[in-house]
Amino acid sequence: MFSKRVSVEQVEEGSDLAPKFDAEGLLPCVTTDADSGEVLMLGYMNAEALTRTIATGEAHYWSRSRKVLWHKGATSGLVQKVVELRIDDDQDAVWLRVKIPGDASCHVGYRSCFYRSVPTGQPADQPVALKFEETEKTFDPKAVYGDAPNPTIL
Amino acid sequence: MFSKRVSVEQVEEGSDLAPKFDAEGLLPCVTTDADSGEVLMLGYMNAEALTRTIATGEAHYWSRSRKVLWHKGATSGLVQKVVELRIDDDQDAVWLRVKIPGDASCHVGYRSCFYRSVPTGQPADQPVALKFEETEKTFDPKAVYGDAPNPTIL
Repeated sequence: MFSKRVSVEQVEEGSDLAPKFDAEGLLPCVTTDADSGEVLMLGYMNAEALTRTIATGEAHYWSRSRKVLWHKGATSGLVQKVVELRIDDDQDAVWLRVKIPGDASCHVGYRSCFYRSVPTGQPADQPVALKFEETEKTFDPKAVYGDAPNPTIL
Repeated sequence: MFSKRVSVEQVEEGSDLAPKFDAEGLLPCVTTDADSGEVLMLGYMNAEALTRTIATGEAHYWSRSRKVLWHKGATSGLVQKVVELRIDDDQDAVWLRVKIPGDASCHVGYRSCFYRSVPTGQPADQPVALKFEETEKTFDPKAVYGDAPNPTIL
């Protein structure tokens, strides 16, 4: 499914899909809600995840914490249907526009993983307080995931 | 400006800014147009880039190809003014909503770095042809960047 990378012109201006995976075999994927444009999550894909996403039209990622291919929604039911898949200029990042059932995406229970903002215009030597932009969870993570280990790594 | 990471609850549910940089000292940053919601680019920030972005309200990145702190727009004039900065659940990725002057962001000359789409529902063993979603460049890269080296690495 992928072409070899042979020139900058091919990669930037051509129609070959010639993705560049990093040293760990991954590329980052920005996933947005196709309707609202909101960024839901930033995930990672290996070659197999990208291939399966293209072949099936459902988002697949590589889970870096669990080290497995991850068909998003297999546990929670929150499968992401791909409306559009884009790749960037040097083909080392992808952007998925998806539709999700219900109104949740994040394992913590919020709609987006990016539920907190950082105020700008702050002195560089002061601690910063985050602000919650989403104040209500759209589902109860405990009810959905039970005792599955939390993917956040300190 | 940053707090120590002490617990999953602090990182996910608290108001401490406690970012997790990767082994190379970087975290990925999704940058979207604050008006249209379009994903403009995916960049990387080190601690200094994140600190300067928060302090100044203008997007700073770490250029992995040039290995320098990168005040976006210093060369091209396409400075990104931060409307909102968000951080994700486990604080290893940020989302910048920005305003840009004019209508361009990508070094190739397009509005977004993600100017090509990948058709889905394709057999996994066939080569894929990308489709140009932007067909006209919004500026001439040669006129803006001159002979500066192209950042794309094969």
